[in-house]
Amino acid sequence: MTDGVPDWLAVDWGTSNLRVWAMTGDGRALGLRTSDRGMGRLAPEQFEEALKECAGDWIAGPVTAIACGMVGARQGWIEAPYIAVPAAPLGDRPVRAPTRTPGLSVHILPGMSQDRPADVMRGEETQIAGFLARSPGWDGVMCLPGSHTKWVQVSAGEVVSFQTYMTGELFAALSGHTVLRHSVGGDGWDDAAFAEAVEDARAAPERLAARLFPLRAEGLLHGQTAAVARARLSGLLIGAELAAARPYWLGQRVGLIGEGTLAGRYRAALEAQGVPVETADADAVTLAGLAAAWAGIRERA
Amino acid sequence: MTDGVPDWLAVDWGTSNLRVWAMTGDGRALGLRTSDRGMGRLAPEQFEEALKECAGDWIAGPVTAIACGMVGARQGWIEAPYIAVPAAPLGDRPVRAPTRTPGLSVHILPGMSQDRPADVMRGEETQIAGFLARSPGWDGVMCLPGSHTKWVQVSAGEVVSFQTYMTGELFAALSGHTVLRHSVGGDGWDDAAFAEAVEDARAAPERLAARLFPLRAEGLLHGQTAAVARARLSGLLIGAELAAARPYWLGQRVGLIGEGTLAGRYRAALEAQGVPVETADADAVTLAGLAAAWAGIRERA
Repeated sequence: MTDGVPDWLAVDWGTSNLRVWAMTGDGRALGLRTSDRGMGRLAPEQFEEALKECAGDWIAGPVTAIACGMVGARQGWIEAPYIAVPAAPLGDRPVRAPTRTPGLSVHILPGMSQDRPADVMRGEETQIAGFLARSPGWDGVMCLPGSHTKWVQVSAGEVVSFQTYMTGELFAALSGHTVLRHSVGGDGWDDAAFAEAVEDARAAPERLAARLFPLRAEGLLHGQTAAVARARLSGLLIGAELAAARPYWLGQRVGLIGEGTLAGRYRAALEAQGVPVETADADAVTLAGLAAAWAGIRERA
Repeated sequence: MTDGVPDWLAVDWGTSNLRVWAMTGDGRALGLRTSDRGMGRLAPEQFEEALKECAGDWIAGPVTAIACGMVGARQGWIEAPYIAVPAAPLGDRPVRAPTRTPGLSVHILPGMSQDRPADVMRGEETQIAGFLARSPGWDGVMCLPGSHTKWVQVSAGEVVSFQTYMTGELFAALSGHTVLRHSVGGDGWDDAAFAEAVEDARAAPERLAARLFPLRAEGLLHGQTAAVARARLSGLLIGAELAAARPYWLGQRVGLIGEGTLAGRYRAALEAQGVPVETADADAVTLAGLAAAWAGIRERA
């Protein structure tokens, strides 16, 4: 950073939000600016202006921005085609986005795809690359909780396979758009109810479908609180995910990316199964992944 | 029916809709009038007027109406408390709703509740009673498909146990309020994809959570059609229901109440498991149940 101008910009551009960090040449973040102009509400020709509006005076002179996330989807700024697994995340040829601003160069990192079972990711590959940049040689399974939680098998620096679970979105749809909305409202939580429900669903996943409506009926008949119902719904869905993802975590060490509330629930659920978990901060590995990509671009320049 | 005046009125009053039939003394329906003034949009003091508006000149002189459904919920016209199973459906004391119209008497049928696992129904008990009125001595398991599908064990004229599955509402929430909405749009359908998905979920229910996002990814990567994705989503959810409801249908004969599209899917799924299915028309058994209740009230009068 010279005279208030960042050496480069790190950009995490998802469906709903845009986040831009001013970065130093050695990978430190000096500041963060955010916007709600996510990819979902922008036409291709609007991305450049949205980035400039969010970054403000960080785009005053020549600067390079490295971006990951849905900005590289077919409906984004420009498509950054998926890299098929097994492969190292990020590859070595980010896609250059078209720009009109003199001196501004924007590189968009590709997502990853898997042929069978069909699956895709955009954004998580950058976190995986960042995790590996910080822990070279790490082998194992990563879990990236979110609306769409990813389980990722990593070996020898490559993503070998991965699987997406819509658990977070399922929780939102059930608690917002079904009769359960009357039973799980508010922000209440009950750790014991969560733990019990994870175990119920993990141990007998074939009974999951029978366990949803009782969340409503227990309230009607027995006065079950919204806090218990809410924690139990979350536990049932995460337990069902653990049942399905068993081949990923059984007998493995798990790298959990994220340190917020949701990641804490995954950690509790995994540790209850005796799985050793190491956590990494999501933003830190995102920035490490973008920094690795920036270094690669600079080397090739 | 004398001089254009029905002998009584049969009323099916759910959360979203109100349906009123003009009935003869021997249980034939002479006409049906419907309204969108369901229980969900009415305050207690508005029910009488909504019924009169819908029934029109059928409420010209003294008349008795027999009503089932959410009209008897705590938030309805007047609460008709649940009858706890095991018990015969309907009981013998419907709740009289308060009315101001001279000559109009309205009787609301109670729902049923189950202590453990907690469960409730309102409306289905009338269909069960109607099914039994038409087939005295019938023992077995009834399946009542809907937004909330009910599985009901019936023996010696009593409901022994039952279980509610939110399968229909889950399908609507997933196809309307998650990323799958981009993949399952329209009305398309694929019978083979449905059958395969039912079997996938029934045979390996522990993998259900892993099978949702591929409905999206198969479209992105391999061009899977919306018709296939839609049928497959429905099949996965009905298959998961069959896995959980296995103690209900295994080795049983199943009485399926309903003859529409949804009931047809349940029939196909059950017959694929070798389960013999006999169907009954939902409206016919609703009317038979209401007629049985009307006859009981007349006897006691």
